[in-house]
Amino acid sequence: MTTSVSRSWDQAAALVMHLQETICTAVEQFEPVARFVVDDWTSEGAGGAIAGRGSTRVIADGSVFEKGGVNTSIASGSRLPPSLLAQRPELEGCSFVVAGVSVVLHPQNPHVPTTHCNYRYFEARRPDGTVASWWMGGGADLTPYYPRLDDVRHFHATLREACDRHDASFYPAFKAWCDRYFYLKHRRETRGVGGIFYDYLDENGYGESENRVAFAQPHGLDAMLSFMHDAGRAFIDAYMPIVERRKDDAYGERERSFQLLRRGRYVEFNLIYDRGTHFGLQSGGRTESILMSLPPLVRWEYAARPVPGSPEAELQHYLQPRNWFATDPFAVVAE
Amino acid sequence: MTTSVSRSWDQAAALVMHLQETICTAVEQFEPVARFVVDDWTSEGAGGAIAGRGSTRVIADGSVFEKGGVNTSIASGSRLPPSLLAQRPELEGCSFVVAGVSVVLHPQNPHVPTTHCNYRYFEARRPDGTVASWWMGGGADLTPYYPRLDDVRHFHATLREACDRHDASFYPAFKAWCDRYFYLKHRRETRGVGGIFYDYLDENGYGESENRVAFAQPHGLDAMLSFMHDAGRAFIDAYMPIVERRKDDAYGERERSFQLLRRGRYVEFNLIYDRGTHFGLQSGGRTESILMSLPPLVRWEYAARPVPGSPEAELQHYLQPRNWFATDPFAVVAE
Repeated sequence: MTTSVSRSWDQAAALVMHLQETICTAVEQFEPVARFVVDDWTSEGAGGAIAGRGSTRVIADGSVFEKGGVNTSIASGSRLPPSLLAQRPELEGCSFVVAGVSVVLHPQNPHVPTTHCNYRYFEARRPDGTVASWWMGGGADLTPYYPRLDDVRHFHATLREACDRHDASFYPAFKAWCDRYFYLKHRRETRGVGGIFYDYLDENGYGESENRVAFAQPHGLDAMLSFMHDAGRAFIDAYMPIVERRKDDAYGERERSFQLLRRGRYVEFNLIYDRGTHFGLQSGGRTESILMSLPPLVRWEYAARPVPGSPEAELQHYLQPRNWFATDPFAVVAE
Repeated sequence: MTTSVSRSWDQAAALVMHLQETICTAVEQFEPVARFVVDDWTSEGAGGAIAGRGSTRVIADGSVFEKGGVNTSIASGSRLPPSLLAQRPELEGCSFVVAGVSVVLHPQNPHVPTTHCNYRYFEARRPDGTVASWWMGGGADLTPYYPRLDDVRHFHATLREACDRHDASFYPAFKAWCDRYFYLKHRRETRGVGGIFYDYLDENGYGESENRVAFAQPHGLDAMLSFMHDAGRAFIDAYMPIVERRKDDAYGERERSFQLLRRGRYVEFNLIYDRGTHFGLQSGGRTESILMSLPPLVRWEYAARPVPGSPEAELQHYLQPRNWFATDPFAVVAE
């Protein structure tokens, strides 16, 4: 049994390292000035820290990417966090291992959206070392400042295509989940234009207990790893063409100032709501790696309101759940 | 009974409005360029928002104060939040009223510390409108970037004096509570050099259930309102002389850059840990008023480390609980 335990975690670890390489290479292709700085780390888990290893790769002060991180973490913990046990009470007493890759890119040019993706494999282990349960989670989403509908459609279409190759139910379910997850309740707006988000994806289905969707036929571990691979590749194909199209668009102080203000919303989401951030900080994760997601420069202004009819006011229409493939996505709010 | 209900809330409301006036006047005395902009609001409580009124007073782009807010909120809610019921389970089924003033000042010059204070009166009411319980909470604290020990001692000595006029146990208890409360666990450092913090202060004592301190003799409502008044005045006397002494100190890009980086810690504390922020956002408080505490401009940098022995590295010594009145406060960590 112990052999099979190591193999699936090892496979997932190899996959996240492969995705990290691929994504870093793609980012550097569009970045003429800066290069990733690699900060490999290992931790024995002393003082409540998480035990494991990882590679934090940070790019900073580029001409296209002002700040970005592409991180892997291959780690274990002796106890599942309370938030997770609430979903899976039968796993009480289990330890866990995880292998994940996490990406955030903050471009310099306000016409280029910020983006994020995260793909992870999670395994709960019984005290005797056997696997009690495994599942995957992840997603990719886009946060534009000056959105263009064709960019948004391209991003979603690329992710949809990757999803459809595996299960026709994935995209509609994961798109809606993304809209629900990346929502700032106190602002009554989504973080951006969404993408896909999923969790508790295993052989038999996906979703949290109250919204669980079961597969008609079980999908195996290999099929799910293949989905993780395709979704990771799709992230590159979904995002990079937008960078290419927008990176040389002209902007000035006004657009820059609005970008910094909107980055404030990104910080609010990540620090108030994001479960990954909270899980990481609570479980003794590496603070600098977790908070590399925060933008390089951010502005807050009391009760800032864009001028009605301005390009800045236009963004607000994009910050509600929408069916991007509808003829007029802004006619009605998506379910 | 209903008469006495209104009176104590009204008294507290009048006091917080008086403190707001006094603090705004003191701030404007040291600010040659900017003036407070007054945004009075009322809310019927529709759509889950809190019902009440308040005055949000914001100062921005001053030559001394880059951003600051002095806000009052006099509001009611139909249900106590779960976090509060966990402390006071006997108040299940009660509604509440609150009157509070909240201050955050972010100076322009990195040699001038950021500061915050908050004083509030809280009342739980039974369904028949009678008072089930009332208490007060509050505190004041200092967050320097380039700390000076004499400033820190002045700040604490001024608050201590105000506390000692009311109860000799206040300062030691509230100072220690402040150190515990304003602590960033994920950074293993305090937010700043502390000050005082207290909650559940009523006629019979103060503190949360597990750390409750009982008075030998009950203090009445008037005595507690008088303490709130004195603590509010002490905030001005504790902070303003530091502004006066440091506001013309020379600084350049280096100090400015470090200030923006450290402001990131302020954001991390307020959005991840601060109970006031979470309570406000969860109970349908006014988002813009609650988040006026966030700094105007903030920077995050991956794994930034000050050069050992530099003034920036010096700050780290101040970010642990210290007895500021000891001959050498840095010799040992305070209990």
